[in-house]
Amino acid sequence: MQPAHLQKSNCADEMFELVRQLYPICRSITGNGVRETLRVLQGHIPLNIQEVPTGKQVFDWTVPKEWNVRDAYIKNSKGEKIIDFRRCNLHVLNYSLPVNKTMSRDELRAHTFTLPDRPDWIPYRTSYYQENWGFCLSHKQLTELRDDEYQVFIESTLQDGHLTYGECSIKGQTDDEVLISTHVCHPSLANDNLSGIAVAVFLAKHLAPKTSRYSYRFLFTPGTIGSITWLSLNEEQASRVKHGLVLACVGDPGKVNYKKSRRGHAEIDRAVIQVLKDSGDGYEIHEFSPYGYDERQFCSPGFNLPVGCFMRTPYGKYPEYHTSADDLSLVQAQCLNDSLAKCLSVFELLEGNRTYINLNPKCEPQLGKRGLYGSIGGSTDKRSRELAMLWVLNLCDGKHSLLDISERSGLSFLAIREAADLLGEKALLKDCSSVFNT
Amino acid sequence: MQPAHLQKSNCADEMFELVRQLYPICRSITGNGVRETLRVLQGHIPLNIQEVPTGKQVFDWTVPKEWNVRDAYIKNSKGEKIIDFRRCNLHVLNYSLPVNKTMSRDELRAHTFTLPDRPDWIPYRTSYYQENWGFCLSHKQLTELRDDEYQVFIESTLQDGHLTYGECSIKGQTDDEVLISTHVCHPSLANDNLSGIAVAVFLAKHLAPKTSRYSYRFLFTPGTIGSITWLSLNEEQASRVKHGLVLACVGDPGKVNYKKSRRGHAEIDRAVIQVLKDSGDGYEIHEFSPYGYDERQFCSPGFNLPVGCFMRTPYGKYPEYHTSADDLSLVQAQCLNDSLAKCLSVFELLEGNRTYINLNPKCEPQLGKRGLYGSIGGSTDKRSRELAMLWVLNLCDGKHSLLDISERSGLSFLAIREAADLLGEKALLKDCSSVFNT
Amino acid sequence: MQPAHLQKSNCADEMFELVRQLYPICRSITGNGVRETLRVLQGHIPLNIQEVPTGKQVFDWTVPKEWNVRDAYIKNSKGEKIIDFRRCNLHVLNYSLPVNKTMSRDELRAHTFTLPDRPDWIPYRTSYYQENWGFCLSHKQLTELRDDEYQVFIESTLQDGHLTYGECSIKGQTDDEVLISTHVCHPSLANDNLSGIAVAVFLAKHLAPKTSRYSYRFLFTPGTIGSITWLSLNEEQASRVKHGLVLACVGDPGKVNYKKSRRGHAEIDRAVIQVLKDSGDGYEIHEFSPYGYDERQFCSPGFNLPVGCFMRTPYGKYPEYHTSADDLSLVQAQCLNDSLAKCLSVFELLEGNRTYINLNPKCEPQLGKRGLYGSIGGSTDKRSRELAMLWVLNLCDGKHSLLDISERSGLSFLAIREAADLLGEKALLKDCSSVFNT
Repeated sequence: MQPAHLQKSNCADEMFELVRQLYPICRSITGNGVRETLRVLQGHIPLNIQEVPTGKQVFDWTVPKEWNVRDAYIKNSKGEKIIDFRRCNLHVLNYSLPVNKTMSRDELRAHTFTLPDRPDWIPYRTSYYQENWGFCLSHKQLTELRDDEYQVFIESTLQDGHLTYGECSIKGQTDDEVLISTHVCHPSLANDNLSGIAVAVFLAKHLAPKTSRYSYRFLFTPGTIGSITWLSLNEEQASRVKHGLVLACVGDPGKVNYKKSRRGHAEIDRAVIQVLKDSGDGYEIHEFSPYGYDERQFCSPGFNLPVGCFMRTPYGKYPEYHTSADDLSLVQAQCLNDSLAKCLSVFELLEGNRTYINLNPKCEPQLGKRGLYGSIGGSTDKRSRELAMLWVLNLCDGKHSLLDISERSGLSFLAIREAADLLGEKALLKDCSSVFNT
Repeated sequence: MQPAHLQKSNCADEMFELVRQLYPICRSITGNGVRETLRVLQGHIPLNIQEVPTGKQVFDWTVPKEWNVRDAYIKNSKGEKIIDFRRCNLHVLNYSLPVNKTMSRDELRAHTFTLPDRPDWIPYRTSYYQENWGFCLSHKQLTELRDDEYQVFIESTLQDGHLTYGECSIKGQTDDEVLISTHVCHPSLANDNLSGIAVAVFLAKHLAPKTSRYSYRFLFTPGTIGSITWLSLNEEQASRVKHGLVLACVGDPGKVNYKKSRRGHAEIDRAVIQVLKDSGDGYEIHEFSPYGYDERQFCSPGFNLPVGCFMRTPYGKYPEYHTSADDLSLVQAQCLNDSLAKCLSVFELLEGNRTYINLNPKCEPQLGKRGLYGSIGGSTDKRSRELAMLWVLNLCDGKHSLLDISERSGLSFLAIREAADLLGEKALLKDCSSVFNT
Repeated sequence: MQPAHLQKSNCADEMFELVRQLYPICRSITGNGVRETLRVLQGHIPLNIQEVPTGKQVFDWTVPKEWNVRDAYIKNSKGEKIIDFRRCNLHVLNYSLPVNKTMSRDELRAHTFTLPDRPDWIPYRTSYYQENWGFCLSHKQLTELRDDEYQVFIESTLQDGHLTYGECSIKGQTDDEVLISTHVCHPSLANDNLSGIAVAVFLAKHLAPKTSRYSYRFLFTPGTIGSITWLSLNEEQASRVKHGLVLACVGDPGKVNYKKSRRGHAEIDRAVIQVLKDSGDGYEIHEFSPYGYDERQFCSPGFNLPVGCFMRTPYGKYPEYHTSADDLSLVQAQCLNDSLAKCLSVFELLEGNRTYINLNPKCEPQLGKRGLYGSIGGSTDKRSRELAMLWVLNLCDGKHSLLDISERSGLSFLAIREAADLLGEKALLKDCSSVFNT
């Protein structure tokens, strides 16, 4: 299933390298970490960076103050840094207010977060919309706090500024758009979601030089507030979205998990399922639920866009999720590449999913005289190419797309697409896809 | 799932006591047994007793002559009463003509009914529409008939009179009605159907003091001819029935069995299924069939009312069915109470099954600023209350009822109902139930 | 399920005798073998034989030249006939050009077809649309070719002539037609498809003397080109086809396999499935695919006729398929008869699948006063006849056919049909089948 141009490329390694490069940056829903991340992406693709000011009303929400953190640590009574933001940026509760105070152990403990079940891992916690400060520690570190007093220091700012997001638009033959969205707000977490960023970037790199039927729009936004902001500022653009994918957790070795759009039977849903089925690899399909990534916003009832969520192991289904263990060891180059290849196959399917009319609808046309049929009849050999042609001829009545035919016949989309091409070359089919009628 | 006001009540015992009180009465499709039964019920609920004269044409049927029986016995050659109606009223073939005659054993045997497979049980038999007389005996009693002659005595009357039924109407905010119907024509049979009578009476007792959206109508009618009579005299009333349940065999310890209405996917069908699913108890769902209780008449094609049949162990599926073994030992107070609680939950679901519009349909509203969301993000704890809110917000597009949302989300109706209440309090939802548009 | 008139007949043996009689004839898609075959059939049924000239354009196809073969052999260097057409007509590649030449073993081998996996069987091969000559041999015969030179002789003609097919039309009360089609182009192959010819002939024999609602049309055509020719010359006729079956491979002992029409839920599809289900025998249902027998043409998108394919073991699923082992030993008289009986049951179902209105739709009619109900109520005996009547009364609302009722109730079509007859006799039903409104 892997497109030929991918097999030859070094995408796998390049994507992993991008993940590694972005890993140390401390991102949040606003601030310089996102800016720095998007600047790195601009080295790969033409990315339009947008800045939306604090206080801007975006539907029911308000763009929050911008948060930046420069340093943070906890020192024990000997003045030793026992917790250091510079060693792991998860240590700071994301959106922590500044603090600089010597306090009792009990007071400190009230502001710490740990994972008792995973004593070596540091949890990832945020407090975007309730002002607070805090430290995320391994549970082991917490139990080692035996001094009576600690110096607690967070050098952060929370003030009017901007929310930053990136947008990359690739123009196609039509204004109908395919939306690919991924979140860019997590600090040093690799699978969730540097993997999504890397795959999205390389999807854009592959699509940019091609002539496509659809236009493609890539969004790199902070989760929730970012997609809400984009939708609020781009309602007309959103109305052009014909298919969409949210990418998340696409670098781990688990099988692909796809969560359907709210519509449940949208073309994107059927396309992803067909590609996964044709791949021969294991996969799992989930019905839509309103809990997850930014498909929550794209699939809100006022938009109801046909946007699903493409993942490998889903959020919350791997123990490392939202902990320091979601590090570079969890992501594999060949898994990033497999996600890339499958997404490209989905787009190839969407591009090629046209609807034809059989120009010779009464009885079968004589394939033999056109060189499309074995000349010695009666052999019981498998003739899957001929079978694909017979299916295409039988169902091309202007009401069945090639995806419909693939689903009904049980043959791969590729086999059906190739059969349609062969028959088209012999002038036996006419394209009547509604998209070309408009 | 059990409503709080029930847990505190003594309903269970009171219902069982009512069954015990009604058990000795000899009921039939007409006659004083029904009248006496309905008078007992009047001690509990305001019951309107109707008398329909013999000969009245009701659709294809005619109200039959009224039957009453005062005494019946078989005496052996020594003058000993070996069969005595006063010991068990099942002994008389229901609707037997009077007889007073000394006859040979063979002549008598031609008028007896027994259950050879259950030699200790007396069967329940009727002959409403073909004039006859007869005795129902245990098979053991039959085999003990060794005398040559017997004195056979039935003191009964079959003459012009009335068919009697009871009706209890509880007015709600709308004229849309919920119908609860149960048969009152069986003599000393406890589960079939004193259990149904008891549960119906206590449903009415619970609903009467409440303010409900629906009006509730309870029918206590003789089987078949009673519901036909009511439908014939109340065609306009019938057209207001939006949901209905026939109650039968609801006091035994079996799991609940629900037979769907002829429509198969009516709101009552879905409501009962949801309540049973949410209960966590075992249950079984049956497709509609035109054999059973009075749903046969309510679901006849000329009415096609959305009326299902709520049972525990279905008719014919327990060996004691229609025999003297369907006695007080088969019915348990806590089973009556469980049936009552589940029916009340069904009505609560119907009452609360409204349709809302999300007033903030574009993207999610910010639940946090309304105190509806955990303030520390990133925890992987189960947040089922928040999940219910997200489902309600996502599907409240004016096209999904709360029951639709419960079914699609897999969350209990109660969870969905509570989420809608919370969101409603914050002015995030608007009720657009069609019932309020009329 | 077997109709009474069949049980008494000798159909089974007569059908097998017909297969035996036709077996030696060398058929092809044109030529005297088809003519001789159809003349034999004229001894059984009134068959109209059509001759369509070579060169006639039939949709995308052209009627080919007529092929006839009189003799063919291969002689070794001693002048011995080692391969002889007169011993088995499969030896000649069907549609071989004439040849008369002494040639090297290598030259000969380039024109031979064998089955290495089945060294004793001779394959069946054709070359209708690419001029060629060849011999089909058992693989054992091929390996025994040890001489350097052979005399190769085929006395055949390929020249302008006709395509021949047979048509038998049985007029019914309406012009709505049931089409039965079977191919007549295979040489000495018994199950594929002398079995189909024999069953079709005896279906026509049984239907001819009856008064039927539908007209029945039987086609005996060469495969593919024959049905295309018929459709091309009979477009208006084709538009009257309401149901149809292609018969193929109906004489082997395998269970019945039915391939649905392209429509997938046509009345013929449902009728066959119901008959097979009611039969109690094993069976298998296949979704439509555009590969198979002449249903390919009848179900092409420009016609989309409701025509399925009735088989026992499907083509390609028995090893003897298209080999000399598909001989008389593969076909059994009682299997032919079972196929015949099931097809007749299908037609009886279609004939009897009417739609009624319950004239007493409000509540049940009183069956007892019409003698349709047991008079002693309360027995738990199975009352399947009454149950069938209750289903018919409940669903006869003018929207459900008897087949609908059979499917929904789970009762056999025969039980439903008999119940409708009983109720019709009592004037409780009115026929409102749409076919009688036209």
